[in-house]
Amino acid sequence: MRNLTVALDVMGGDFGPSITLSAASQALSLYPNLYLLLVGQSDTIQSWLYSQSSDIQKRCSVIHSEQVIEMDERPVSALRNKRQSSMRLALDAVANGQAQACVSAGNTGALMAISRMVLKMLPGIERPALIAALPTLNGGRVHMLDLGANVDCDSDTLFQFALMGSAMTRVVEGISRPRVALLNIGEEEIKGNDQIKQTAQLLHNSGDINYTGYIEGNALFTGQADVVVCDGFVGNICLKTCEGLTSLLLSRLFSAQRTPAWKKWLIRKVFPEVIKLKDAMNPDQYNGASLLGLRGIVVKSHGNADENAMATAIGEAVIEIERQVPERIADTLESALMGK
Amino acid sequence: MRNLTVALDVMGGDFGPSITLSAASQALSLYPNLYLLLVGQSDTIQSWLYSQSSDIQKRCSVIHSEQVIEMDERPVSALRNKRQSSMRLALDAVANGQAQACVSAGNTGALMAISRMVLKMLPGIERPALIAALPTLNGGRVHMLDLGANVDCDSDTLFQFALMGSAMTRVVEGISRPRVALLNIGEEEIKGNDQIKQTAQLLHNSGDINYTGYIEGNALFTGQADVVVCDGFVGNICLKTCEGLTSLLLSRLFSAQRTPAWKKWLIRKVFPEVIKLKDAMNPDQYNGASLLGLRGIVVKSHGNADENAMATAIGEAVIEIERQVPERIADTLESALMGK
Repeated sequence: MRNLTVALDVMGGDFGPSITLSAASQALSLYPNLYLLLVGQSDTIQSWLYSQSSDIQKRCSVIHSEQVIEMDERPVSALRNKRQSSMRLALDAVANGQAQACVSAGNTGALMAISRMVLKMLPGIERPALIAALPTLNGGRVHMLDLGANVDCDSDTLFQFALMGSAMTRVVEGISRPRVALLNIGEEEIKGNDQIKQTAQLLHNSGDINYTGYIEGNALFTGQADVVVCDGFVGNICLKTCEGLTSLLLSRLFSAQRTPAWKKWLIRKVFPEVIKLKDAMNPDQYNGASLLGLRGIVVKSHGNADENAMATAIGEAVIEIERQVPERIADTLESALMGK
Repeated sequence: MRNLTVALDVMGGDFGPSITLSAASQALSLYPNLYLLLVGQSDTIQSWLYSQSSDIQKRCSVIHSEQVIEMDERPVSALRNKRQSSMRLALDAVANGQAQACVSAGNTGALMAISRMVLKMLPGIERPALIAALPTLNGGRVHMLDLGANVDCDSDTLFQFALMGSAMTRVVEGISRPRVALLNIGEEEIKGNDQIKQTAQLLHNSGDINYTGYIEGNALFTGQADVVVCDGFVGNICLKTCEGLTSLLLSRLFSAQRTPAWKKWLIRKVFPEVIKLKDAMNPDQYNGASLLGLRGIVVKSHGNADENAMATAIGEAVIEIERQVPERIADTLESALMGK
């Protein structure tokens, strides 16, 4: 079991160190071969470290950073003016080999722009895409991209997303020929906008992708596709709508304030399927979207993630290091794009 | 109580007359002042009519139609070649004053194209939009448009959607200044694509709309907006994703095959909130999206609607006739667009 090092942007996210440091200690307990580079205000990090076990202390290093990128800061300003920010230094650590992955809950646009400049793109890929997994009705997962890194995408970009999503799913899920579908407003060929129709044509003609056609929003969770491709505008709205709706449904069913202890007991005894559902839909366990297409591993956590969700994002980085995701995507791209 | 006449496209939808005719009899029972023009294969309709009560027989007229527009037919082919289709003749009946509204579960693109040609647009509106209501956490409703009539929309079109959605919500919900929000991938001003940013500018500058800013997918159900505006590509995918996710969650909780009678009894007694939730989320009661912007009322039902859902769509047409929706939207547009 080789050691893995993840650079953690301690200052990122809506809650900063209070969440990221608790998540760090949780992840270190979960993964015994994990080392963390904690990037942020060193005073805050050191005072937290003193309170930790000697094992945790030994597995953490600190990189001091003076600057923080704000959640509403423009990417171009973050690129130019925040070269000493926690996010930038965490990505620098991946670029110079100190760490094998970066995890941040900070500004998505800035993370994408800085990753692209610091880590560089894989050959043949123009823009990174955010990918994450959602649960399906048959107990599986569907990987969806892009989830918000790119608001406008032409058909070449969407085709590259399909290639990367397929390669990632093959590596992470062990599916030999992942079924790739294109998110659209109908299943018929005449449906959709020009980009979608052109992308469908590219996918049809590609021997490297197991393309299964258009998929509609209501079929996302049926398990009929392993990878679903869309632009970042649609993907982001779709994903957040799912989160909003799930919270609405679960809050109505499981409001802790309203449910007395005997009812909770009864639910547990008589309706185990309700508990299973609650666990299956818990968005925390799906936290951590990966930025694909870079020469390095970058995992984006939700800005408002709690410590469990943030620890899940660190776990996602661990899996991607172990499975060598960027290297294996690069191999796939090489053979697919050479043949074009 | 004045009489209301709705032209029903009997042949439309995935199941045709078997569903639409059952829905017709349900709607006629619900609305005593409703008359129906049943448009479709007259043999089928007449043989169904013989089996109905004399009251229902008296309140139905039949318009025979030889042609049916297929669900995957291109709108332009439907426009040119299907002038005797049930959908076309139902819309003709609204145009020539025989009916005050048309209800169809047929091909959405064809319905939009034919409505536009036959009924004409309201002054100042270029393209019709599909609008429907979704439930919110606080027991209210949020009206969302466009839900799939227009795949590409520029900022002028989105601005017109905001005007129409606001007017419709004022009339139907009785809210004097409906809160209008723009669906986007973030709440900050820098987020979104060019169309969204330009539309935000138009809405900011308009005195006729109570514009409250961007809204994200996860806030759709919070009740913080009365009207949510987006293009038809995003809206359609968003709505269908909600339907898919709701079915997934409800099917896991309420699978009729798996739940024994005593458990159902227990749910009803001990967890009335579960039943309330099921009722509140039942997509049937939200069936019936209206095509706004036309000089007439057109309600689109889901293609796969069952008879209850189809009857709800007919009920939506009844409400719009009673509230004179197109006339009142035209009034709003006149004052808003004159001032531009």
